[in-house]
Amino acid sequence: MADPNVVARQFVDYYYQTFDTNRGNLTGLYRDMSMLTFEGQQFAGAKNIVEKLTGLPFQRVVHKVSTCDAQPGGPQQSILVTVTGQLLIDEETQPQFFSQTFHLYPEGNSFFVYNDVFRLVLGM
Amino acid sequence: MADPNVVARQFVDYYYQTFDTNRGNLTGLYRDMSMLTFEGQQFAGAKNIVEKLTGLPFQRVVHKVSTCDAQPGGPQQSILVTVTGQLLIDEETQPQFFSQTFHLYPEGNSFFVYNDVFRLVLGM
Repeated sequence: MADPNVVARQFVDYYYQTFDTNRGNLTGLYRDMSMLTFEGQQFAGAKNIVEKLTGLPFQRVVHKVSTCDAQPGGPQQSILVTVTGQLLIDEETQPQFFSQTFHLYPEGNSFFVYNDVFRLVLGM
Repeated sequence: MADPNVVARQFVDYYYQTFDTNRGNLTGLYRDMSMLTFEGQQFAGAKNIVEKLTGLPFQRVVHKVSTCDAQPGGPQQSILVTVTGQLLIDEETQPQFFSQTFHLYPEGNSFFVYNDVFRLVLGM
């Protein structure tokens, strides 16, 4: 079985690098049964998820990962990945804190995102 | 299938109420295959997990949940629960922000905690 920490780190590096350079390219990580909860709003399926992400009202974003934890997710060889970090939008100089959880399922030699939950942590 | 949002809300209410009144009683929520990652430290099995939680160096803690999101976790009817919130320890007056993810698996008419990942969000 793949080492959850190695998979998590590779996934997280790829995910935020892609998010910060060309969000549309995230489509390949999601499937029809994937789910995103973004600030409490739910989206189902790769198409709706990536429409939401590409439609977010900013031009530039930089994610900085502070912590990345991983655990095996159960008998189906899934991997649970939890991230905390900061993000900086457009010309803002004050980072916002965020928390994001991914649940990755294996597919061939790779993984896709089954669950994705994003929350800003300050704004409470 | 159980409504993930209903299960999540009931679980989260019970979990933090129990944590804040008698942490030792959390034992019933974990099993031998359960995992906890607490601030990057890993613990496996109900006994080790609850030893860690009951050994945390404070007398009093109050958790206040700010957000609670839930999604079905996959074909095994598991439920993914993500929480952000604040906690107040002992005599402190400044709350700390935290993020916690639970992955619940069904067992009879109830659920147990398979994955548990806790992080303070400020402290970065």
